[in-house]
Amino acid sequence: MELTVYLAGEIHSTWRTDLKEAAAKRNLPLHFTGPMENHDRSDDIGEEILGVQPNKMLKDEAASSINNLRTQILLQKADVVIALFGETYKQWNSAMDAATAIALQKPLILIRPESLHHPLKELANKSQVVVENPEQALQALSYVFEEN
Amino acid sequence: MELTVYLAGEIHSTWRTDLKEAAAKRNLPLHFTGPMENHDRSDDIGEEILGVQPNKMLKDEAASSINNLRTQILLQKADVVIALFGETYKQWNSAMDAATAIALQKPLILIRPESLHHPLKELANKSQVVVENPEQALQALSYVFEEN
Amino acid sequence: MELTVYLAGEIHSTWRTDLKEAAAKRNLPLHFTGPMENHDRSDDIGEEILGVQPNKMLKDEAASSINNLRTQILLQKADVVIALFGETYKQWNSAMDAATAIALQKPLILIRPESLHHPLKELANKSQVVVENPEQALQALSYVFEEN
Amino acid sequence: MELTVYLAGEIHSTWRTDLKEAAAKRNLPLHFTGPMENHDRSDDIGEEILGVQPNKMLKDEAASSINNLRTQILLQKADVVIALFGETYKQWNSAMDAATAIALQKPLILIRPESLHHPLKELANKSQVVVENPEQALQALSYVFEEN
Amino acid sequence: MELTVYLAGEIHSTWRTDLKEAAAKRNLPLHFTGPMENHDRSDDIGEEILGVQPNKMLKDEAASSINNLRTQILLQKADVVIALFGETYKQWNSAMDAATAIALQKPLILIRPESLHHPLKELANKSQVVVENPEQALQALSYVFEEN
Amino acid sequence: MELTVYLAGEIHSTWRTDLKEAAAKRNLPLHFTGPMENHDRSDDIGEEILGVQPNKMLKDEAASSINNLRTQILLQKADVVIALFGETYKQWNSAMDAATAIALQKPLILIRPESLHHPLKELANKSQVVVENPEQALQALSYVFEEN
Amino acid sequence: MELTVYLAGEIHSTWRTDLKEAAAKRNLPLHFTGPMENHDRSDDIGEEILGVQPNKMLKDEAASSINNLRTQILLQKADVVIALFGETYKQWNSAMDAATAIALQKPLILIRPESLHHPLKELANKSQVVVENPEQALQALSYVFEEN
Amino acid sequence: MELTVYLAGEIHSTWRTDLKEAAAKRNLPLHFTGPMENHDRSDDIGEEILGVQPNKMLKDEAASSINNLRTQILLQKADVVIALFGETYKQWNSAMDAATAIALQKPLILIRPESLHHPLKELANKSQVVVENPEQALQALSYVFEEN
Repeated sequence: MELTVYLAGEIHSTWRTDLKEAAAKRNLPLHFTGPMENHDRSDDIGEEILGVQPNKMLKDEAASSINNLRTQILLQKADVVIALFGETYKQWNSAMDAATAIALQKPLILIRPESLHHPLKELANKSQVVVENPEQALQALSYVFEEN
Repeated sequence: MELTVYLAGEIHSTWRTDLKEAAAKRNLPLHFTGPMENHDRSDDIGEEILGVQPNKMLKDEAASSINNLRTQILLQKADVVIALFGETYKQWNSAMDAATAIALQKPLILIRPESLHHPLKELANKSQVVVENPEQALQALSYVFEEN
Repeated sequence: MELTVYLAGEIHSTWRTDLKEAAAKRNLPLHFTGPMENHDRSDDIGEEILGVQPNKMLKDEAASSINNLRTQILLQKADVVIALFGETYKQWNSAMDAATAIALQKPLILIRPESLHHPLKELANKSQVVVENPEQALQALSYVFEEN
Repeated sequence: MELTVYLAGEIHSTWRTDLKEAAAKRNLPLHFTGPMENHDRSDDIGEEILGVQPNKMLKDEAASSINNLRTQILLQKADVVIALFGETYKQWNSAMDAATAIALQKPLILIRPESLHHPLKELANKSQVVVENPEQALQALSYVFEEN
Repeated sequence: MELTVYLAGEIHSTWRTDLKEAAAKRNLPLHFTGPMENHDRSDDIGEEILGVQPNKMLKDEAASSINNLRTQILLQKADVVIALFGETYKQWNSAMDAATAIALQKPLILIRPESLHHPLKELANKSQVVVENPEQALQALSYVFEEN
Repeated sequence: MELTVYLAGEIHSTWRTDLKEAAAKRNLPLHFTGPMENHDRSDDIGEEILGVQPNKMLKDEAASSINNLRTQILLQKADVVIALFGETYKQWNSAMDAATAIALQKPLILIRPESLHHPLKELANKSQVVVENPEQALQALSYVFEEN
Repeated sequence: MELTVYLAGEIHSTWRTDLKEAAAKRNLPLHFTGPMENHDRSDDIGEEILGVQPNKMLKDEAASSINNLRTQILLQKADVVIALFGETYKQWNSAMDAATAIALQKPLILIRPESLHHPLKELANKSQVVVENPEQALQALSYVFEEN
Repeated sequence: MELTVYLAGEIHSTWRTDLKEAAAKRNLPLHFTGPMENHDRSDDIGEEILGVQPNKMLKDEAASSINNLRTQILLQKADVVIALFGETYKQWNSAMDAATAIALQKPLILIRPESLHHPLKELANKSQVVVENPEQALQALSYVFEEN
């Protein structure tokens, strides 16, 4: 049995790479997907495909339609979703991805520093597991495969 | 035919009252629901029901379980969801409610100032209608009942 | 028991009014909904609510988001959908509404002149009932309430 | 991860072959399905299997039941749907397939020339991505697999 | 609380009338629906609405599309389904209605004489309650409203 | 807006009556349903309707089919489920009703003495709200209707 | 792409073997499942596993629970269902399997001699394809894989 | 065709190992999953991942969130669920897992000694198959793959 894990949330740190390497070291049968991690590429993908747009709002609209296509496809393929929220980037789209996972009945593991507990309390309450760092999220997934 | 409309999002301004009054003036058959608008009450509801908690995190956990009960019941009863995002309070739980509505296939009307277009672009792209003020959201709902 | 019937399809003739009058004469407990029947209003509703748009394509995009809000709300409230296709206006959005009804497992009554059988054959095959005029559609609905 | 892509819409040009070749050149893990592209075969399949029918309408009914069997099976297997609409063939069944995909929550990429924007505005509004040619649709799918 | 009960199965006896009278006597808040009980009308309804058909098979096809419209609408409105099978008329469409109710997760009460246990054993096993006469079915429904 | 609340769990105390009286005093628009509270009647209902059974196991089987009919109908009508677990009666069917509510996405309020936390920890974790007495459950429901 | 096909209906002839051999000759990527074809085994399976039962009705109940387990598992795994009805065995459980497939939105191919059209007219109307022999059903499935 | 079987229920005996060995001997294409069988590990997993908790209740809450993550993932992957109840450990979470399987429309095989029939009668009535020992459950699954 292999699990597909969508890694939602912050794209400005190396947490996804770290998590994948840690999973590889433990030999866990996990397959990871996630959003485009190159922020500029993610902002420009609409114009890259559809050509230059008349203004910034339409550039954003074009980009978000392509990014949402990616998210919709990958979320539907996922068995579990991990969402990481950090101090610096308080993105609404991460909350959107996390809430979508919950509504689709995909189990959600929420990673957030304790300092963010208050603003994330409703999302935390809806998550299946709440941890403070990616290593703990991985331990939780590892536990799914252990028998004793 | 009457529609039940859940009013998600910012709770620090009077936009809900304004919207209800405007709907009443137009005689629209709309029934409105929404979150607890008294912020302190919303933060304290866990301790109000369950008693004083050992620390702030557990106080938050208790409160969010009651607030989420309210949201879950009212969202399931809603025919349409309106979510308003403002400059000052960038709440993740508003994004969570909006995304939940979309995933449950409830049509979402997003209200946000143009200045917030970029950070809300993925949510805007998933919304059925995007407007800049509550009056426009009401016009869109009014249109549902008009025949010519 | 009352049934809510969404009347999809052509908006340029008086078939909806005729159907409603015929239902009223028979005293059938039917409640009818449908799209905005004023074609200009339907094309202009985006700019009416959101203000003048930069070009025709964006005017269309604005209008369609409001029209789809209306359709989504009313289709979800419907127990049955009747879709009428005529010789003159070969609208793709009527086919979209009809197919959406089928996919949502709402029973669909298709009204079309025999001359349109070939281009509508796949939609006809998916419809629960296929007739040639609104009077026949009404007879089919009337039969739902008759006991002998 | 491999994606299955159903190619709905116009069957009279070579766009499907072009798309498949372009996907092969880029080495994308895409598996394509779609309707019977031989128009005569598609019209005759009912009689081919069930024998000569009494009249043209029954020939059509027989053919559409087999074509819809094919579409239903393949749409349910699809992860994404691409629908192409062209100037010449304004088929209602293409709109039906596109709307069915949306209602089944399969992401839809709509391809249409800018000249068709007005009659397709409601379908465009419901699509996840709207582009003008197959190459752009492929770029959007390619983006789903890219990491930076 | 009122329950809507669809009465599927045999249409050649007076069991529906008996059941309705017994429910009225007990003052139970039950609303009953069911198929057209006039067998000839049910066979002729296709031609009554669509005109004389070329042959018996097409007459049947026309009638069944109208009868299935009725069943689909009424089954979706039902809270509970009662299906009665008798010795004389071994209709497949009664089994179809009963199985549809089960698949839609509507609770099914099966009424059948003990003599039919063997041929109905799979359907009995899927039913929520199996009884031998309408009075027992009514007792089961009555029990839903009793508190002690 | 009125809410229908299914009261699952222990049937040997007066907690349901107490809860209903407290709700009536607060004038809350709540409609309560629940299992048969007369334990003997609940055990005997199968034989009451179907006649004396050959042995105790078949008597139980008959009774449980009628009791489950009642539960299935009432759970599907419920907007919220409250489940009370007590020290004395550790019924598996209460856990079944609570888990069914969760799986059907009905919000669950779990009432249990603190002493039962350990054996109920998985169910508590899946519940939306966990309280220790019926009064607290009522306060949580009351909060759904309050605006400030 | 491989399709899993559940072969419902009559178990007293060799139609399943014939169909599988014909599919093998055409090299079609079809995987077939179906009910236990040994009638005695199917009737005795309850006692084979659970031991001798007190009477015939309980023997039947035991057998049907095991047979329904098989059907439920295999129907859920199926992409398409083929149901064959013959002159001799007018089984209600075949109609149950066919109706379950339809309600689960699995496409159904109905095979029946023309002589059975009248009693099967409602089921035929709900089926995606109606044919008279297994060879035609196979042709319809073969068409799903053909491109021109 | 391979089936994934989730083994819910009692974790204090060797029934899972016995079942797996018996399945291996029969060469059945079954893949088994289940809960953590090391009881202490299951109670401690919360603190193992999240660190020492302030009190026993919070230790339990932490552990149950991880155990429920495991159950949710594995139940969703399962084709069939087997739940074993024994005399000694009357766990509510086993009833929860069994009821969740039923509500998700996963077929449930219930294993319980005859002595537990009365307290498990509602769950037994909802199960697809009820047996007294693991060997019988395996026979039932084996039957799914047999053709005569």
